[in-house]
Amino acid sequence: MISKIYDVIVVGGGVGGYPAAIKLAQHGYKVALIEEHLLGGECTNYGCVPSKALYRIAHSIDSLVSVIGRSIGVSWSVLREWVESIVSGTREGIAYLLEKYGIDVINDRARLSSAEGIVKLSNGEELKAKNIVLALGTDPKPLPNIGFDGSDILSNREIFYLKEMSSSIAIIGGGAIGVELAYILSSIGIDVYLVEALKRLLPMMDSDIGKAIERFLVSKGVKVFKNTLATSINRSSDGGLEITLSNGSRFTVDKVLVSIGRIPRTKGVGLENANVEINGYGYIRLYDGYRTSNPRIYASGDVVGPPLLAQKAIIESILVANSIMGRDVNRLEPEKIPLVVFSGLEIGSIGFSEEQLRAKGIRYRKYKIPLSFLSAVRIKDSRYGFVKALIGEDDKFYGLHIVAPNASEVISSFLPIYLGKISVNEAAYIPYPHVTVSEAVRDFAEYILGEPIHMFIRK
Amino acid sequence: MISKIYDVIVVGGGVGGYPAAIKLAQHGYKVALIEEHLLGGECTNYGCVPSKALYRIAHSIDSLVSVIGRSIGVSWSVLREWVESIVSGTREGIAYLLEKYGIDVINDRARLSSAEGIVKLSNGEELKAKNIVLALGTDPKPLPNIGFDGSDILSNREIFYLKEMSSSIAIIGGGAIGVELAYILSSIGIDVYLVEALKRLLPMMDSDIGKAIERFLVSKGVKVFKNTLATSINRSSDGGLEITLSNGSRFTVDKVLVSIGRIPRTKGVGLENANVEINGYGYIRLYDGYRTSNPRIYASGDVVGPPLLAQKAIIESILVANSIMGRDVNRLEPEKIPLVVFSGLEIGSIGFSEEQLRAKGIRYRKYKIPLSFLSAVRIKDSRYGFVKALIGEDDKFYGLHIVAPNASEVISSFLPIYLGKISVNEAAYIPYPHVTVSEAVRDFAEYILGEPIHMFIRK
Repeated sequence: MISKIYDVIVVGGGVGGYPAAIKLAQHGYKVALIEEHLLGGECTNYGCVPSKALYRIAHSIDSLVSVIGRSIGVSWSVLREWVESIVSGTREGIAYLLEKYGIDVINDRARLSSAEGIVKLSNGEELKAKNIVLALGTDPKPLPNIGFDGSDILSNREIFYLKEMSSSIAIIGGGAIGVELAYILSSIGIDVYLVEALKRLLPMMDSDIGKAIERFLVSKGVKVFKNTLATSINRSSDGGLEITLSNGSRFTVDKVLVSIGRIPRTKGVGLENANVEINGYGYIRLYDGYRTSNPRIYASGDVVGPPLLAQKAIIESILVANSIMGRDVNRLEPEKIPLVVFSGLEIGSIGFSEEQLRAKGIRYRKYKIPLSFLSAVRIKDSRYGFVKALIGEDDKFYGLHIVAPNASEVISSFLPIYLGKISVNEAAYIPYPHVTVSEAVRDFAEYILGEPIHMFIRK
Repeated sequence: MISKIYDVIVVGGGVGGYPAAIKLAQHGYKVALIEEHLLGGECTNYGCVPSKALYRIAHSIDSLVSVIGRSIGVSWSVLREWVESIVSGTREGIAYLLEKYGIDVINDRARLSSAEGIVKLSNGEELKAKNIVLALGTDPKPLPNIGFDGSDILSNREIFYLKEMSSSIAIIGGGAIGVELAYILSSIGIDVYLVEALKRLLPMMDSDIGKAIERFLVSKGVKVFKNTLATSINRSSDGGLEITLSNGSRFTVDKVLVSIGRIPRTKGVGLENANVEINGYGYIRLYDGYRTSNPRIYASGDVVGPPLLAQKAIIESILVANSIMGRDVNRLEPEKIPLVVFSGLEIGSIGFSEEQLRAKGIRYRKYKIPLSFLSAVRIKDSRYGFVKALIGEDDKFYGLHIVAPNASEVISSFLPIYLGKISVNEAAYIPYPHVTVSEAVRDFAEYILGEPIHMFIRK
């Protein structure tokens, strides 16, 4: 029984969903947004937002402690309450916009029940729309044979909201989430073990990045294990968790955080009822632009596959709206999506790694400079920072990788030269403000041109 | 008696001087650099570098205190020694480069003794060069009738190196230096009075900036006086300094910092012997490019006039070298030089203010949005942040003004749209990383296009 008809139903209130809803409503579409849990989704509630809130504090503590040389204790409950207030404020901001734009927000679980744009709610009610947008997101992936228990074996869903923070933690998985939390938790005084199965941290990124970040984290007291699996986790007699690693190491911690990957939320949503195909990894398969195999149904955000990044999801969501409005839409190209990691010594990276270029058979010149000559970097004590560009024989940038304080902001200053919008020669004469890390754009451009002011090169 | 002949003599080892020396030496020129005081000049020793070092600490303390709600005491001597180590490290970096490039560094006072490229040192020795570069810099301007005394009435030359920090300070002059130091000193626990003669803080910048920064500083406990002069400073019976203001207010502080302006160092240098003209403000007058009225003598940096910014001086110094090498050189345009202020809630600004555009009779559209909707800004608690663009009828950007956390870096992310290198429409679809302040570029572009996702606009 169809109770209501919309122009568009958006399933999922995260960053892959709400932007489409708002954009369509701005253009007069009648829109419903169905979210089964919390508006803002994983990013707002369990990811980017709480982690960056806690990062602000962790980074301030680390910054102070490394100069004044004594520890600074902070109360976890004060931090947690503050993080909660940031998250709820962000969520309320989204709710406010949705309401102001007249979008029907439905807090329920949606299931596709036909190929004709019908969605069923848990109470049996059915809604219909000309178009449906699936922004279903992903769930944290558990360790094989060891599920999340919500109290000791944790995912990003629980770590920010623990009633009491542990004094020691094992983080299984040295990707972006693992590395960020290793830095954050270690900076607020927690004993951190970081365990990565592959041969380096951040294994999907350019190898120089993982190496630099490992040295940095080790210098901060994080115990890093690579090429290593957690083979067992057992409750010890004193209530701790005894971790055994594949290299034979054994240690006891209070909590385990698992950050080994994500699983698309494509099960139990009725995709099969609507002829929406998924690929071998469970992500929704896209055809023309962001259209699924059912041409009236679109998908955006994490559920269409990697890179799993909020900045990708937001733009995709907007592009879906444009597509529904009949505007021409090109798929966002992965090599034009910057990735950042808030790891104290931060990471900003866009395009291909050396490994990827070699695998593709693309020939490239490599330019890599340390950043220790920059006053801003010297001030922020970042011995391991660098910027590295991979430039093809066509003089096009194929990869740009920055490890530096503020790299999360600075990558955006590098975007125009990476995208070819500002030439290297132009960049060498732009007075980027002193004393910033963005000045590296000029210094790096000078270096590529062979005339760096702040480096000694033998002619 | 001429003891040595060079291709180029650079007078002044600051950021307006050493880049030219290095660039020329890279190209095989025989170069001497004469610096009477310390390599790196005002910026490295008494300005940008020590202030940004101290800013790192101040900002970390402020960031922590505003969440955890209790004060954090730090030892001034620990901070001062660390700042000194940053400054000396920066200076040594410059010395290293000059040495590696084979530049003769002469620690002496130089005086031009003829129009033919002759420079006299204090011991009477004379050096000659085909070209001379004058990068003489500026000195702090004292209060009328009240000179600097080096112990109580201070300039930027002494404030970072005090043996003991005062518990209260009056800062006379609410420009960039005054505002930065008000934030820094207040954050490390000093009682700050900030006194500005004109009607708002940062009077040379767009009026919205000064207003926002005043609210911010007041919220941090700084006592701000505008439209106010310090009419007298008297030693009180308990050893403090009693300040009387033109509005009748009277208060006692330990120290006074004067930051009311700069004076070009063009006196006593023998400019008249070399036919080098100065303008009515004492700055060296430029003719073709960076050539002075004596065509073999160039000038760069602060000594050629405002804006007095390191990023301007560096590029000018490089342009002077290019010019000496016979490369075509265009003068750096002031409206293409971004200015930043490290004031906690930071400032990044480029181009004209509304007042300036009105005075020039340029018609403009104003776009201004608050930034509180951005997660990165919400996390950094910046109620007063905004971004504002002034766009002409030709759709050109005439001014861009940002008040936000990280604005010192973020202004560089805005540069390409300001410079017309990336269109507003393109910027709206660039996936600037989440959760950063640089994301504001996309949100602001959406706003200009009339379709902002994160703001409610009535259609």
